[in-house]
Amino acid sequence: MQINWMDSVFSDGSIRFVSNPLPQLNEKISIAIRMLKDSPVEKAYIRYTLNGEERVVELEEKDIKGNFIYYWTRIKIEEPVLKYHFILCTRDNVYYYNQMGLFEHFITEDYDFKLIADFEKPSWVDDAIFYQIFVDRFYNGNTENDVKDGEYTYRGFSSKKMNWQDKPGKYKIYGNLDFFGGDLEGIAQKIDYLKELGVNALYLNPIFEAPSNHKYDCADYFSVDKHFGGNRAIEQLNKKLHEEDMKIILDISINHTGDTHHWFKEKRDFYYFYDDENYESWCGVKSLPVLKYENPEVRNAIYKDEKSVLKYWLKEPYCIDGWRFDVGHYTAKVKGSTIYREIWREIRRELKTLNKDAYLIAEHWTDAEEYLQGDMWDSIMNYFGFFRPVRKYLGENDLFTGWKIKNPMKTKNGINFSKEVMQHFARLPYIIQSMQFNLLSSHDVHRFHNSPSISRKNILTGIVMLLTFIGIPCIYYGDEIGLEGDLGDLSNCRYPFNWDEKKWDKEIYETYKRLIALRRKEKVLINGSFKILTADDSSISYARFNEDEAIIFINSQDKEERTIYIPLLTIGDFNNFEVIFNNGEESEIAYENGLIVVNLKPEQTYLIKFYR
Amino acid sequence: MQINWMDSVFSDGSIRFVSNPLPQLNEKISIAIRMLKDSPVEKAYIRYTLNGEERVVELEEKDIKGNFIYYWTRIKIEEPVLKYHFILCTRDNVYYYNQMGLFEHFITEDYDFKLIADFEKPSWVDDAIFYQIFVDRFYNGNTENDVKDGEYTYRGFSSKKMNWQDKPGKYKIYGNLDFFGGDLEGIAQKIDYLKELGVNALYLNPIFEAPSNHKYDCADYFSVDKHFGGNRAIEQLNKKLHEEDMKIILDISINHTGDTHHWFKEKRDFYYFYDDENYESWCGVKSLPVLKYENPEVRNAIYKDEKSVLKYWLKEPYCIDGWRFDVGHYTAKVKGSTIYREIWREIRRELKTLNKDAYLIAEHWTDAEEYLQGDMWDSIMNYFGFFRPVRKYLGENDLFTGWKIKNPMKTKNGINFSKEVMQHFARLPYIIQSMQFNLLSSHDVHRFHNSPSISRKNILTGIVMLLTFIGIPCIYYGDEIGLEGDLGDLSNCRYPFNWDEKKWDKEIYETYKRLIALRRKEKVLINGSFKILTADDSSISYARFNEDEAIIFINSQDKEERTIYIPLLTIGDFNNFEVIFNNGEESEIAYENGLIVVNLKPEQTYLIKFYR
Repeated sequence: MQINWMDSVFSDGSIRFVSNPLPQLNEKISIAIRMLKDSPVEKAYIRYTLNGEERVVELEEKDIKGNFIYYWTRIKIEEPVLKYHFILCTRDNVYYYNQMGLFEHFITEDYDFKLIADFEKPSWVDDAIFYQIFVDRFYNGNTENDVKDGEYTYRGFSSKKMNWQDKPGKYKIYGNLDFFGGDLEGIAQKIDYLKELGVNALYLNPIFEAPSNHKYDCADYFSVDKHFGGNRAIEQLNKKLHEEDMKIILDISINHTGDTHHWFKEKRDFYYFYDDENYESWCGVKSLPVLKYENPEVRNAIYKDEKSVLKYWLKEPYCIDGWRFDVGHYTAKVKGSTIYREIWREIRRELKTLNKDAYLIAEHWTDAEEYLQGDMWDSIMNYFGFFRPVRKYLGENDLFTGWKIKNPMKTKNGINFSKEVMQHFARLPYIIQSMQFNLLSSHDVHRFHNSPSISRKNILTGIVMLLTFIGIPCIYYGDEIGLEGDLGDLSNCRYPFNWDEKKWDKEIYETYKRLIALRRKEKVLINGSFKILTADDSSISYARFNEDEAIIFINSQDKEERTIYIPLLTIGDFNNFEVIFNNGEESEIAYENGLIVVNLKPEQTYLIKFYR
Repeated sequence: MQINWMDSVFSDGSIRFVSNPLPQLNEKISIAIRMLKDSPVEKAYIRYTLNGEERVVELEEKDIKGNFIYYWTRIKIEEPVLKYHFILCTRDNVYYYNQMGLFEHFITEDYDFKLIADFEKPSWVDDAIFYQIFVDRFYNGNTENDVKDGEYTYRGFSSKKMNWQDKPGKYKIYGNLDFFGGDLEGIAQKIDYLKELGVNALYLNPIFEAPSNHKYDCADYFSVDKHFGGNRAIEQLNKKLHEEDMKIILDISINHTGDTHHWFKEKRDFYYFYDDENYESWCGVKSLPVLKYENPEVRNAIYKDEKSVLKYWLKEPYCIDGWRFDVGHYTAKVKGSTIYREIWREIRRELKTLNKDAYLIAEHWTDAEEYLQGDMWDSIMNYFGFFRPVRKYLGENDLFTGWKIKNPMKTKNGINFSKEVMQHFARLPYIIQSMQFNLLSSHDVHRFHNSPSISRKNILTGIVMLLTFIGIPCIYYGDEIGLEGDLGDLSNCRYPFNWDEKKWDKEIYETYKRLIALRRKEKVLINGSFKILTADDSSISYARFNEDEAIIFINSQDKEERTIYIPLLTIGDFNNFEVIFNNGEESEIAYENGLIVVNLKPEQTYLIKFYR
C-alpha cells in the first residue's frame, strides 16, 4: 500500500495550525496547512473573503518539521467570522482543501474552516466529562421530601410513590406522576461515587417546581421543586461540587412552561392565546403552552432582566455553570417565525456577558448547523453528529427516522458512519467542534446497552468511541453499570439507579472507568486533532493526534476476520506504540514505514497509542 | 449495461412533482416522487420540519404512469419555507433523496427541496433570452451626443473620442475615458437585429450619468448620461422594447457611488467618512466611495421612498423590468457587517410590492447560497454555477482563483463539472434554480470565444449548453458574431460591435440563432426538469425532460473516440428520437430498451430529442 500525499494534507482550528484559536477582532494571527514534505505541491494559498470580495493569498512561509512541510501566512481578523479554505497547486492540477477534505473541483464555502472573533469559550469545558442525572431516579438522599401517594393529581393522574426496586410506570397508567424519591441531597451524597467513576461535571434534568417527574412542565422557574429539596438543596449541591472542582449545568425549557405556571393565568400575553380555549402548545400537548417571544416582556423575564430566569441561576448563590435548553430546535419558531435567530443571539450575549464560562447547549435531533456557528449555542445534544452515526454503525437502526420507519437499514457501514459524522462536523467552526456534547444515551431514548441490536462487544466499542471522540463526553446515569431498561415507553430509560454493586455489569463499569481515566490522563484525547483515517463498508479508524503522539481507534464490523491498513505516516512520524484497549483476541500489529497493518476479528476494537 | 432503479428516483419543484410550484401560505398542495415501477421500494416518506420538529409522513397515494410509479401526498404550506427530502424503504435498506441525489446515510438539510410560500416570480422570465449590452460599444445611433476629445478630465485622464474601428484603450493609458459613441438610440435602431437573432430581453450595463465609459462611478442616479441620450432616450427605448414584447433590466451599483456624485459632497453621512481624507471605498478605489446602509436615510434614498432610486426607474414612464445589482456580494457588508441580509430582504419586499414582475439579479462570483433562498435575489450573474464549470469543462483554467493562481488545473473533467454545477444548483429552491442567469461571457472577463484554450468545437458546445441548460440564458453583445477581443486588460472584452456582416463568424452566429430558435420552440428547454445523466472523467450528458419528451445533451472531451451509455429509461419511456445538433461526424446512435449508446469523436456534442 502506497502512502498518498493527498491523505497527508491537514489543517484544523487547533493551536497547531492557528496561532490563536480564540482571536480577538483586529488581531493578527498565523494560519497553517501541512502535508508530507515530498508532496508535489508547488504553491499553497488561502482563500477567504473580505467585505464579500474574494481574497486569494499565497502562504509564502514554509517550515519543515519531521516528515512534514508547513505552509503558513499571517492574516488579520477583520470580520466577526473568518471563513477560509486552502488552494494547493501541483505542476498539473489545482486542489481545494476544506474541513471535509481535498477536492479537485472548486468548492462552496459550506465546509470552510471558520474562526470566530471574540468567541467566549468556557475555559473548563475541554476537560469536562459529563454525567447526566434524571434526578428522581438517581438517589434518594432525603426521604422526608418524597412525593406521597395521592399527594396531588394532575391531568387525570394521581401522584404515586414507588419503591426503589420497582420499574417505572408506563405513561398511560401513571402519566409521569410516579416518583422514586431521588433528590438533590441524594446527588450530593453520591459525589464520592461520581469522583470514583471519574466524571467531573453534571447535567441535571429539570429540577424546577413542576407536577411531573420529568419537570419539563415547569410551574415556577425560580423554585427548585420541594420534592427535590428546594432552592437550598441546589445551592448546597453546587457549593459542594465546586469545592470538588466539579461543574453543573441545569436543564430548562424556555420554549414552554407547564399549564400550572402562574404566568399562564396571570400573563396571558406571554403565550399565543387564540381564544379562551385555544393556544399554541408544544406539539399540541395542551399542558405545555408555548412562550411568545414576539412579546419583549417574555424576553425580559426569561433572559434580559438582571433577575431574569436564565441569569438568576447563573448568579450567586447558585452559580450554575451553564444551561441545557430543552426543545431548542422548536423555541421561538412558531409558524416558521425567524425570530428565533435574534432570540438565541441575544440569549448568548446576555449570558456570556454575565459569565463567559457558561456552557450553552440545546436539544436538537437533526441538522442544527445554523445554531452552531458561534453566535448561538456552544453545542447541541449531539444526536446528529455522534449518537446516531455511532449507534447505526454499531448495529442499530437509526432511531429518529425509525420513529416512523420500521424498515431495517444498512447498519455497520463505515462509509455511512464517516459521511454522517463529517456532514455535521465539517460545517462547524473548530471551536464548536471541540465542544460538541457527545452521548450514547439520554432520558429521551432507550439506553444504548439496552438495544437488542447492539452486541456486547459493540457496547464496549461505543464506550471507547464516546471517550475518545472529539467533543465533550456525557454518560447518562446508570449507563456505566449497565442499568436495566427496555425499549418502547420513555419510562424504560429512566429506571432508578441500582446501588447494589453486585447487580452491576462489571465489564461495562470497568470499561467506563478505564476510558474516563484514560481521557483524563491523555491530553491528546482532549486537545488533539481529529481525523477519520479509513472507512469502508464495514470498518473505520480514526485518530486523535498532535505532533508528538496519536491515539488510534480501529474497529471492524465485518462478519469475517479482516486486515486493515492504515497510512499512519499521513498524520505523523511515530516510533513506538502500545495497545491501550482491545475487546477481542490478541493479534499481531505490524507497523512499518508508517503503515499500520492489523487483523481484526468480527466486532473487534483496538485503541493504540503511538508516540515518538 | 443494467438500468439501476436508483438512477430513476426523481423529484423536483416543477409542476410535474408539486401541484403548485408557487403556493400561497396555508395552501394545501401535493408533492410527489417517482421511480421505475419495478423498483424494490416498499414505502416512501417525506421528511420536513414544522416549528422545528421533525415530521416524517408516508406518501400513501400511488399512481402508475407508463414505466413509473409516483408516490405522493398532500401537505399544507404552514411556514414561509417548506424544506423537505424523501425517505425510501426497500426490504433491507433505507435511502434518503434530496436535490443532490440518493444517499444511504441520513442527511443534512443542505440539499433539501425547498418551496417558498408567496414567492413572486416574474411571469415573463421563463421565456426570456437575454442580451447584454455595454452601451458605449454597441451602436452609435446619434453622433450628436458623442463625448468629445478632451470634453472633460477625470482622475488625471482626459476624455477621448475613438473611431468605431479602433481597439478600446488600455486602462493605464485611457483610464476608461475612451468613448466610441454607442448610445440608447443606437440600441433602439438595432431592435430588428435583436429580433432577428431571437433574443427578447436586454440587460444594459450602467447608463446613469458618470465620467467613465463603464459608468459604475455614478454621478447621478436619476439622470441617464447625456452622451447615451438622457432620460428621454431610455423612456423611448423602453417603450419600443415593450411594444415588441421585449424586456429590459438596468445595471446599478448601490454599493458605491462615484466620487463626483453630489451626495459625496452634500451628504457625508451617506458614506463611511473617517476624516476629511479617509473614507470607505470599494476595494480601496477612492473614486468609488461606499454607501453606508446603517444610515436609514441611505435606505430611504436608495429603495424605500416612493421617489427612491430603485423605484424611480421601475415606475412610469421608464417601466424597467428589473435590476442587475453590481457588486452585490460586497453591498452593505463593510467590515463583516451582517446588515446586508436585512437590506436585501427590504429591497426585495419594496420592489416586488411595486412590481411583482421585477427580476432582481446581482453580481456574485462565488458561493452565493444565502442570497438565493427566495427572500433576496432571484439570481446571481451565474458565474459560480454555470460560467465557471462550463468554461473549465470546455478547457479553460478556472478564471477566478486563476486571477491569483497561474498553475494549470485539470480541465475537461465531467465529474468535476457535475460537482461544480450541482453544489450550487442543489442548494437552491427550484423556483430559483429555474431563474439562474446563465452566461458564457460578460463585461468583466475575456470573452468565451476569445479564450485560447477553448477549441472551435467547444465554442459551439458552449453555445448549446447556454441555450439548453436550466436557467435563463444571456448572450453578451458580440459573442454571437465571434467579436474580436483579447485577454488581460478588461477593455479587451469591450470591443465595439462589428456591424460589417462580412467580418462575422458565420458558424458561431448561425449556431446562436439556431439554438435561440430551438429554445423558443421547445418548451421543454424552458420548463423541463433538469438532470445530469452521466459524468465521468471526460464526458457528460444531461437532460431537459417532461413526461412526453426529453432533449439530451451529450458531449465527450476525451482525446480518443469513445462510447457513451446513457440509461434514458430512468427519466422516461420514449419511442422516437431525432438529432437536433451535432458538431462532429455523423455516427450511429443506438437506442434500445431505454439505453442510448453513442460513439463520440473528441469534443463532439450531440443534442438529441426523444419523444413518444
